Amino acid sequence: RLLSSVIAALIAFPTDGVEGRNDQVATDIRLWLMDYLSDELLPQLRRLINTLVSRAESETGVLMPGYTHLQRTQPVRWSHWLLSYASMLRRDCQRLADCRARTAMCPLGSGALAGNPFEVDRQALADALGFTSGVTWNSLDAVADRDFASEFQFAAAMIGNHLSRLAEDLILFCSKEFGFVTLSDAYSTGSSLMPQKKNADSLELIRGKTGRLCGHLVSLLMVQKSLPSAFNKDLQEDKEGLFDSADTPWFESPTVHPEACAGALSCDMLATDLAYYLVRRGVPFREAHAASGRCVALAEAKACQLHQLTFEDFRTVSDTFGEEVTQLWDFETSVEQYGAFGGTALESVRQQVAAFRRWLGDEQK
Amino acid sequence: RLLSSVIAALIAFPTDGVEGRNDQVATDIRLWLMDYLSDELLPQLRRLINTLVSRAESETGVLMPGYTHLQRTQPVRWSHWLLSYASMLRRDCQRLADCRARTAMCPLGSGALAGNPFEVDRQALADALGFTSGVTWNSLDAVADRDFASEFQFAAAMIGNHLSRLAEDLILFCSKEFGFVTLSDAYSTGSSLMPQKKNADSLELIRGKTGRLCGHLVSLLMVQKSLPSAFNKDLQEDKEGLFDSADTPWFESPTVHPEACAGALSCDMLATDLAYYLVRRGVPFREAHAASGRCVALAEAKACQLHQLTFEDFRTVSDTFGEEVTQLWDFETSVEQYGAFGGTALESVRQQVAAFRRWLGDEQK
Amino acid sequence: RLLSSVIAALIAFPTDGVEGRNDQVATDIRLWLMDYLSDELLPQLRRLINTLVSRAESETGVLMPGYTHLQRTQPVRWSHWLLSYASMLRRDCQRLADCRARTAMCPLGSGALAGNPFEVDRQALADALGFTSGVTWNSLDAVADRDFASEFQFAAAMIGNHLSRLAEDLILFCSKEFGFVTLSDAYSTGSSLMPQKKNADSLELIRGKTGRLCGHLVSLLMVQKSLPSAFNKDLQEDKEGLFDSADTPWFESPTVHPEACAGALSCDMLATDLAYYLVRRGVPFREAHAASGRCVALAEAKACQLHQLTFEDFRTVSDTFGEEVTQLWDFETSVEQYGAFGGTALESVRQQVAAFRRWLGDEQK
Amino acid sequence: RLLSSVIAALIAFPTDGVEGRNDQVATDIRLWLMDYLSDELLPQLRRLINTLVSRAESETGVLMPGYTHLQRTQPVRWSHWLLSYASMLRRDCQRLADCRARTAMCPLGSGALAGNPFEVDRQALADALGFTSGVTWNSLDAVADRDFASEFQFAAAMIGNHLSRLAEDLILFCSKEFGFVTLSDAYSTGSSLMPQKKNADSLELIRGKTGRLCGHLVSLLMVQKSLPSAFNKDLQEDKEGLFDSADTPWFESPTVHPEACAGALSCDMLATDLAYYLVRRGVPFREAHAASGRCVALAEAKACQLHQLTFEDFRTVSDTFGEEVTQLWDFETSVEQYGAFGGTALESVRQQVAAFRRWLGDEQK
Repeated sequence: RLLSSVIAALIAFPTDGVEGRNDQVATDIRLWLMDYLSDELLPQLRRLINTLVSRAESETGVLMPGYTHLQRTQPVRWSHWLLSYASMLRRDCQRLADCRARTAMCPLGSGALAGNPFEVDRQALADALGFTSGVTWNSLDAVADRDFASEFQFAAAMIGNHLSRLAEDLILFCSKEFGFVTLSDAYSTGSSLMPQKKNADSLELIRGKTGRLCGHLVSLLMVQKSLPSAFNKDLQEDKEGLFDSADTPWFESPTVHPEACAGALSCDMLATDLAYYLVRRGVPFREAHAASGRCVALAEAKACQLHQLTFEDFRTVSDTFGEEVTQLWDFETSVEQYGAFGGTALESVRQQVAAFRRWLGDEQK
Repeated sequence: RLLSSVIAALIAFPTDGVEGRNDQVATDIRLWLMDYLSDELLPQLRRLINTLVSRAESETGVLMPGYTHLQRTQPVRWSHWLLSYASMLRRDCQRLADCRARTAMCPLGSGALAGNPFEVDRQALADALGFTSGVTWNSLDAVADRDFASEFQFAAAMIGNHLSRLAEDLILFCSKEFGFVTLSDAYSTGSSLMPQKKNADSLELIRGKTGRLCGHLVSLLMVQKSLPSAFNKDLQEDKEGLFDSADTPWFESPTVHPEACAGALSCDMLATDLAYYLVRRGVPFREAHAASGRCVALAEAKACQLHQLTFEDFRTVSDTFGEEVTQLWDFETSVEQYGAFGGTALESVRQQVAAFRRWLGDEQK
Repeated sequence: RLLSSVIAALIAFPTDGVEGRNDQVATDIRLWLMDYLSDELLPQLRRLINTLVSRAESETGVLMPGYTHLQRTQPVRWSHWLLSYASMLRRDCQRLADCRARTAMCPLGSGALAGNPFEVDRQALADALGFTSGVTWNSLDAVADRDFASEFQFAAAMIGNHLSRLAEDLILFCSKEFGFVTLSDAYSTGSSLMPQKKNADSLELIRGKTGRLCGHLVSLLMVQKSLPSAFNKDLQEDKEGLFDSADTPWFESPTVHPEACAGALSCDMLATDLAYYLVRRGVPFREAHAASGRCVALAEAKACQLHQLTFEDFRTVSDTFGEEVTQLWDFETSVEQYGAFGGTALESVRQQVAAFRRWLGDEQK
Repeated sequence: RLLSSVIAALIAFPTDGVEGRNDQVATDIRLWLMDYLSDELLPQLRRLINTLVSRAESETGVLMPGYTHLQRTQPVRWSHWLLSYASMLRRDCQRLADCRARTAMCPLGSGALAGNPFEVDRQALADALGFTSGVTWNSLDAVADRDFASEFQFAAAMIGNHLSRLAEDLILFCSKEFGFVTLSDAYSTGSSLMPQKKNADSLELIRGKTGRLCGHLVSLLMVQKSLPSAFNKDLQEDKEGLFDSADTPWFESPTVHPEACAGALSCDMLATDLAYYLVRRGVPFREAHAASGRCVALAEAKACQLHQLTFEDFRTVSDTFGEEVTQLWDFETSVEQYGAFGGTALESVRQQVAAFRRWLGDEQK
């Protein structure tokens, strides 16, 4: 084909001390990044999301404490926790897609910096090479622009941040003190001497790599102006490493322990439900909240748990309490309240699973 | 209206030690950022782009050297240089628009972390509050997610990088050694003792602020997980400062000196044109390039400039040279070669101006 | 005095557009930092170290698990854990002292950049102003040098890192799952509704500030060259905040729960002791280690704990075991083995306390 | 020797899943860094300082403008400029020496984390291995402490910053517009087509590496807590690269062009000298400064240069001016004023050279 011969000629333009270099280097790096995102990173992330969604779907029965700042707050479903990470990684996919679109502008035909003197059809070149966002607008800018690389590096640092949080949660859940989860042997190293210790080395590596990704971003932002041509390599190195370990197998493996998770739930995590109960019976928020606080104080005074308060106890606090208040102390029931989209009720979790499946299906196309 | 009363109720939900807090804080920060982007930062950037484009349109007659690494390379139009910055800032606008879209997902109804127990219509809330990208998918993620803030901070760091490069170019162009540009008195400070010195303080400040923006990005990436609620202030501080100084006036003011710019052009910057000349007469790239190199060597041997070589001199290098080769040494003609889109020829610069005007028009809508 | 009048004159030298400015600004910033280090930061750090050492001295009886990567490894003393942080903060003091010494070189007399034309006695000026490291060597360097500020900012980031690790350990120890420590009410916030939750807000703030300190370091490294004069403020802001919260009270307050700590110890943490036992009886390291591993395997096979193995069980593994092996399972005894300097035995901890007290005494002088 | 056999034993302690690992890894990394600093980096830096000092000594005759923010300020000696970089690098050497001292504390005998159970003489081990700062104080801290690595990385980033400023100055001085310096061919790449262009690639690389060093520092600060054992490699990589290029040859090569430097000096840079002249004749600073300003205004009004004002002109401004004021306009004389230590006068430059030579001599020992 004519076109490809033109391209060949342009690409073949001797580069030893010759003007054609700058736009060719820029073109090469962009092509590499476009391929890497489409063929490697995005599929890997989608596979990981898929794993999280599949587990979320099949393990809806497990309840666990939701934490804020390592303090138990409210009961949630294990599936809900899994989907929170699917949610973060979906944003990462979107950011990478935006980054890819901005990368897919073709700088070829910008020459050394002044442009191309041979009336080349730049749009045709761009189409032929697969640049789906058209051609760059200004040759001076095009030969020096590495914004897309910084943007990719930022998106990678964000992925690192998310995987690192996932890793930290798992390390915590695997500790003796929590005991919610056991890693498979393939993803931890033991010691012949201390078999009780399963070091989550693979998880620790992820945290380490996150620091590195962030450091690379800083490097790029600092050298922005005087990027060496050998910069190609910079973009590649360490990426593979991270995203291999981010690949699905390591996350298929951890076994969750429903009883341990449930064992960490306690009635004081349901104080909010008491307030909600009153709100549903028409008590204004602020009052309901105050009444619930008084119940908590009463339990403390009687040195018992909330669920050990009698119906009479509750009535000393408010006349609105009905007998069924003593039936409130069921974690499953508590969780089922949160039925608005995005909540932790079974139906809401299923809607989330469905939403993710739809999105994954659209992406696949 | 019913809706707004529901919202009022939700927002009014007592926050002192109460569960409603987390999603409300997240909602507030998102609303602030959405407004800031739409009402302040994006309009400011577009005004700056507009100033650059307007000057580019009216000062097309000025030629100057294009530099790579502070070495003169090829002649370009001053307008082309101006548009290269318009080009960078356009990308910044696009990045901010993507960031705004991801910010415009409503977390309200995620409660403390488990969700909302009152069958609230989250989509209606989102619409009423102006969240154009719908509702967040997972309450656990939604209350903690500050990705949009990191993304904004990254986009701000990129803007800082671009303005910083513009500032550095101007500082250089204002130096005695270059002398291409004079700053207006409003944007520089002199000294009663040394009136010859005009310190480009406003430009230096921009460079300083860029370092700070990048530092803030690092801070955010490091604290990602444990963001204090007072984090609101973090997003705001220093932003105004930067973008005030990024506002247009300081860039309307510099006067360009066409003669000084032209004076920095020299014939050796046209060696490439010699090769292009031969290519147009059918000589293959590589050969043309070699022949041009021999002409340069010949000029050196004769201790003269390229344009002082005679027709006979050129013929000793290649038979392909016609008499008109001695007419090649005109900078205006050289610049006019680069007519492909994105190049520095007059027509190409005008096309760029038109493209920017169209884009600015679309954005305004 | 003559000297101070000379100084007054130099300092009074009009600064409006005048040459004297640059070295005066540099002098001012250095003086501020020298005072801040000597009068505020170093005393604060020493007070915090003193608190840690005092608690270490009085609470030597508490045993707890030593963790690697959140997995219980070996029993250690709570005092030993406290002193590990004293140890980090001592390094911080040393780094700050080095930084102060390099700050204490006087740039006064460097003028705008070329030097001082009035045969001023720079050494006398330096002495009079309290610059204990003499005068700067080169005026061009002296007016622009802000290395000392970067160095301080780095040292501050390291302090932040250490306090952040301390804060993370405490947050973990305060969690329901660990339960080793309770914060005093003054340093945590509860909720009227969920009194079971004590949020360690003050600890979280420390982690947040650490990210900010690191971000400031990056800012400084990036703007190094074009430091605005108003840079003074940069050095100060946020410092006070951090080091207030780093001050001692918040660390005097947490109550340690010896039983909870002891309850987290288990016999499998003593597998190493089994190997050490054999080594003491002349078995080469590698063999001892293998034998100990076989005992662990045996206990697993018998579905019992290590300390439930009988003397006969041990003999099936190695003839070297004596009867006293069944007496090995005492945590106090285990801890007492580590008597080499720096170890967790009582005597060794006391030596550390003494070493810190001596060092603190020397510093005070 | 007994000692070394003990060490051998300790080092040989099986590391497969065994407790001995942590302190051994820490010891290894420290030994590597101590050797690298003593045998490679510090000697390289001293060689570079030596080159700068030698050139400063032999090229005292060259005058050039001193710049603030790229605006010519006062004349200085080229030697003075060279020594300003020697001055920065001397601080780097001092920082590295401090870092080395803190690295030279021996962690061996800290075991996995609890200490050593065999009454090993840790001080003897430290002496035998060359740890000149004794032994670490706390085993829990010692096995995890990588402060020395961060400190080294910070010191390296500062070196990068200084070399980067040197590189930027040279790139500027090599530009056609400045023309003060020519790089040798060995340290620049030309183009067969554009022989006028000498790209200072080696200098650009230095700037690029500086960004990378700063990025590594950020990485380290972020992963501080969970340092992988393979961290050894991190410390080494890229360091060699930087400091090869920092080695002396590239700085021996640039040729300075005294006439070009002198050509950039102009009389308006001596307005300060006019004020100094009056101060020497007893006029108070502020008045002298005002009078000098009026002379400048007068010259502007007469559209002439300062040195073209007549004696009568000066007398209209102040009676204090003597006839010799018209002899003031000599750059050599101006420079010779700055005789206080650290200034740019010949004698002062020679004193600096002597100070550096003495310091280099002391270091060598």
